Amino acid sequence: MQTYKVLFLPHNIEIALNEGESLIRAAMDAGVHINVSCGGEGVCGKCRVIIEQGEVEGGISEKLKQADVEKGYRQACQSFPKSDLVVRVPIESTLDASVLKRKSVPRNMADIKQIDFEELREKGLFVPPVEKRYLELSEPHAKDNIPDVTRVVNYLKQNYHESKLEVDLSVIRKVPDVLRKDSFKTTVTLARPVREGGKTRIVNIQPGDTSGRNYAIAMDIGTTTIYGSLLDLLTGKVLSWTADFNGQISYGEDVISRIMYAEKPDGLETLQQVVVKTANTIIKTIIQRAGIDPDEISTITLAGNTTMTQLLLKINPMYIRRSPYVPASTLYPPIKAANLGFDLGDHVTALIYPAVSSYVGGDIVAGVKGSGMYLNEELTLFMDIGTNAEIVVGNKDWLACAACSAGPAFEGGGITFGMRAAKGAIEDFSIDPLTYEPMNITIGNIRPQGICGSGLITIVATLFEQGVINNNGKFNRDLNTPRIREVEDVYEYVLAWKDETSIDRDIVLTEPDLNNLIRAKGAMYGGYMTLLSEVGLSIENIDRIILAGGFGSFVDLEKAMIIGLLPEMDPEKVTYVGNGSLMGAIMSALTNRVRKDVVQVTRRMTNFELSETASYMDNYVAALFLPHTDLNRFPKLKQRLEQRQVSEQ
Amino acid sequence: MQTYKVLFLPHNIEIALNEGESLIRAAMDAGVHINVSCGGEGVCGKCRVIIEQGEVEGGISEKLKQADVEKGYRQACQSFPKSDLVVRVPIESTLDASVLKRKSVPRNMADIKQIDFEELREKGLFVPPVEKRYLELSEPHAKDNIPDVTRVVNYLKQNYHESKLEVDLSVIRKVPDVLRKDSFKTTVTLARPVREGGKTRIVNIQPGDTSGRNYAIAMDIGTTTIYGSLLDLLTGKVLSWTADFNGQISYGEDVISRIMYAEKPDGLETLQQVVVKTANTIIKTIIQRAGIDPDEISTITLAGNTTMTQLLLKINPMYIRRSPYVPASTLYPPIKAANLGFDLGDHVTALIYPAVSSYVGGDIVAGVKGSGMYLNEELTLFMDIGTNAEIVVGNKDWLACAACSAGPAFEGGGITFGMRAAKGAIEDFSIDPLTYEPMNITIGNIRPQGICGSGLITIVATLFEQGVINNNGKFNRDLNTPRIREVEDVYEYVLAWKDETSIDRDIVLTEPDLNNLIRAKGAMYGGYMTLLSEVGLSIENIDRIILAGGFGSFVDLEKAMIIGLLPEMDPEKVTYVGNGSLMGAIMSALTNRVRKDVVQVTRRMTNFELSETASYMDNYVAALFLPHTDLNRFPKLKQRLEQRQVSEQ
Repeated sequence: MQTYKVLFLPHNIEIALNEGESLIRAAMDAGVHINVSCGGEGVCGKCRVIIEQGEVEGGISEKLKQADVEKGYRQACQSFPKSDLVVRVPIESTLDASVLKRKSVPRNMADIKQIDFEELREKGLFVPPVEKRYLELSEPHAKDNIPDVTRVVNYLKQNYHESKLEVDLSVIRKVPDVLRKDSFKTTVTLARPVREGGKTRIVNIQPGDTSGRNYAIAMDIGTTTIYGSLLDLLTGKVLSWTADFNGQISYGEDVISRIMYAEKPDGLETLQQVVVKTANTIIKTIIQRAGIDPDEISTITLAGNTTMTQLLLKINPMYIRRSPYVPASTLYPPIKAANLGFDLGDHVTALIYPAVSSYVGGDIVAGVKGSGMYLNEELTLFMDIGTNAEIVVGNKDWLACAACSAGPAFEGGGITFGMRAAKGAIEDFSIDPLTYEPMNITIGNIRPQGICGSGLITIVATLFEQGVINNNGKFNRDLNTPRIREVEDVYEYVLAWKDETSIDRDIVLTEPDLNNLIRAKGAMYGGYMTLLSEVGLSIENIDRIILAGGFGSFVDLEKAMIIGLLPEMDPEKVTYVGNGSLMGAIMSALTNRVRKDVVQVTRRMTNFELSETASYMDNYVAALFLPHTDLNRFPKLKQRLEQRQVSEQ
Repeated sequence: MQTYKVLFLPHNIEIALNEGESLIRAAMDAGVHINVSCGGEGVCGKCRVIIEQGEVEGGISEKLKQADVEKGYRQACQSFPKSDLVVRVPIESTLDASVLKRKSVPRNMADIKQIDFEELREKGLFVPPVEKRYLELSEPHAKDNIPDVTRVVNYLKQNYHESKLEVDLSVIRKVPDVLRKDSFKTTVTLARPVREGGKTRIVNIQPGDTSGRNYAIAMDIGTTTIYGSLLDLLTGKVLSWTADFNGQISYGEDVISRIMYAEKPDGLETLQQVVVKTANTIIKTIIQRAGIDPDEISTITLAGNTTMTQLLLKINPMYIRRSPYVPASTLYPPIKAANLGFDLGDHVTALIYPAVSSYVGGDIVAGVKGSGMYLNEELTLFMDIGTNAEIVVGNKDWLACAACSAGPAFEGGGITFGMRAAKGAIEDFSIDPLTYEPMNITIGNIRPQGICGSGLITIVATLFEQGVINNNGKFNRDLNTPRIREVEDVYEYVLAWKDETSIDRDIVLTEPDLNNLIRAKGAMYGGYMTLLSEVGLSIENIDRIILAGGFGSFVDLEKAMIIGLLPEMDPEKVTYVGNGSLMGAIMSALTNRVRKDVVQVTRRMTNFELSETASYMDNYVAALFLPHTDLNRFPKLKQRLEQRQVSEQ
């Protein structure tokens, strides 16, 4: 991809920008504030910049006078670089050059970790869970009329040195016809045992040589979204993937409401059928996209939280939501996928990720597996942030985990204008430190509609660092701006005026919103504080952080540290694994070496019920400040706040 | 049961008779000929005897004059002893006292072997395949909220020293509700692994203490009849049993016609559903008769011939009937009974008896298991006689087996008046050596309707020994009796005149009938001759014979030796195991020790395809005489035949 250098003046900050990205994006990433109200749609006309060198495409509209255009003015949100650029942000937009001394922190997102199949191979960690073998059998005759299955088994023993073979009934049913379709040339699929000494199962048989085609499916059954990947077991490559909303959403948004629905007559059956229906849609799509024969799929690996898993397996989840929160099981036997209703061959076994407890499910175990944290010396903090946030701390020697009742703030829930990370959600934000005018960038660069979780963190962190809100989550009543106002005894900050939005209402952030966010991040911080203190460690001992879940990919790490969601550390030490659950499922689908570890890892994960852990309440209450009661835990932020106070004096 | 002594004069033969059995039965068993044409219904009036001492009930009818009744005359077939008796057979019925010198051989049937559960127990061979364990679990609370399944597993480990436990999905589904039904008091059913080192599966869980109730089903899936037994796994007792015609009969009488039906569209599915329907009827009946809760049934063991097994499992059987006669498989994995359509709980595993070849099926393996012949030093000949007769020879060191195309003669097929062993079938027979008048006894003692398999053997053996037919199976053309006649170039013997039958036709035995029987018994004799010679042994080496199958229970052993179906040996050495297949299934259902041996036994059974074994044709042709080309193989018979010739000269 073509990238261009953009130098912002008078800030004198240079940043690289990908072709196709707008100057407003470059400014935001560079930490250069430009007033923008309309999310980047080009309608507010506030984001005027001067192109001093280089060439851009677009950026000219009726919002600019012809004379200004000739001087080099462009609308930053509509300008896309065609060469390296020198861009001046005019004084009218920043009001006072002194602001340049107060650099905002550039956006800093987690590195994305991906599976390196070649590395797995090189490390000897690639142990295919299913393999195909091509057989050229001799044809039976009067002196050699052993059973068809015996002929297959004998060949495997003699030519491939297989032993301890077990044959599925579905294969026995196929054998007679398959062998005679291509003159006793045939390909069998062998499912390897996870444990050493176990039996290898013959799970499929096909006419002719199909040994070059062997596929698997990995699936993350999320409460909201189901993700499915189709994998080539010979190369480890993801051939296709897709996602779809979990059809169960119609029966309740979160796990608790799903469980309540499952308690109704036929509720459990309905939810089971609905989730499988979504899964089947996904399976159909990824098979079509990859252009493969469904019969070549040998296995499916599924990961989901404990409730999603119990619903998928039609196990009554009612005790998950009732104290003392007991799940039915945390380990599941291999199950015929077709018996669960999956549109997959009779030979396909479904492997279900084991869970730890009612609220630390298979998705988290898969994330721990996918991230590899259980293999390393380093003390790692793993966080999957969402409505039900889960945290795991530990390393190759021990693992402690807990679920946090963080509430839905990180997904936009409980926030006046909160919304999911969809088009129109403010996802990036900056503020003019003198005028308190905002720079709102929305997903899709359209007029704002609300605030998504990562946007909320950025907004609150920015407002806090700029002194617009204090460490109690209250707006500074002394600032001279119409954007801070009191409506019916509630203070709020106006992010966008109604004529700049797509909803014809002022989009605001209120003090109750701030309170909700602080409680959510306090629950997280209190959670891992508690896990660490329970094992005699503290936050300083954490070597690295792994973020998982949709939220993790967009969150600005420095901002998350400013509000005290994450402990303060070098952003380089923070990794994002994306959908950790899917990643774990993919790895388990690819190699038995990983599957072999899973049960062991699950047993090693000590679950803490935070509500039953004495120290948790203290840790939680101490975290109900920005960033925390004890600012010394955030030394860099403390230094910046002190510098700001000096510069303002 | 009350028995009485009956002394027949002038023969001077005494025999014990059970109360309720007629004098004609006593005479037949004693080898005393009395003319009877009507099968024992009392209508021919020929069987007059004089009660010289003792008291009988019945025997008086309009066939007897009052004067004769006063002299002590009674109809033997209608007379039942009430005390010890002395009975004279009047000269008018035997015509000539010289016949007394020619004793016919008394009826001699095989001893019936039955399972001795206590012996199994004492020998340590009782290893229950499924066991129940009662658990009193502690209830979960905030500090102890481990998953329900983990609570169960931990208790089993701590209190019952169980290890390597695996939990079925069906159990996981039940656990949450079951535990909470009776305050965490529960009973689990454990299915033991057949192999050492295997896993114990938790297959069922029930509220409260049900450990005193644990049942199994054993079933023989016969081509004609399905037998089912309900077993108490705690005592080894058969609580109830029943049998029913295999519903597949409507789709063909024998395995070949069933296979042909299975080749039609949906034929296989239909036959599978039909056989399971019959099985379900049987299951329902035996559950009701035993008065147990179906949920307490833990396992079902099934044995059947290879075709019946493949049809039950919905495996295409078409190659079984086509050269080179290849079955799909001979070993089958454990299968959920419910998945096959059985009306049994989700927790019930079906164990299918393994087979050896297309025509030596699981029923024979079960018979070998049930008879215990694979455990003994003695060289044993095992024969399951029916349309598809199977033979096994061997001992604890080796086993050779083969299927014989004996044809249906032993089941009454291919015989002019052949019929199944049902009411009205002539099952016992004697002949007056001077007048050649018959003594026919039918099943149910009603007018004759035809001849069943065991009756046919007795008739032919008797006619042969009395010189009515020669060793070529031809009637002696020189005898002066209207009962031997030529009709349309075919010689025949009239067993019953039309007015003495229930079918208003003469019931006859023809030379083609004799030919069919000789070929059938020749196939059997040639079969075991061949197996023995292939391993370097001969018939003299056989220590004992085990007969299985419905046929075996009624056949007169001495008669079977006279026609050369069985080798000549002490009848004491012949055992009858009844339904060997059902017996093997019962034993496997009762104890894992037997199941453990099954696969090993199957592997040890060397199958011979007689049609491909060079020596078979010679052995077969040599056996196409009565009793055999080489009379020296039957020394006792030879001696009797020689004595007869002397006495006739």
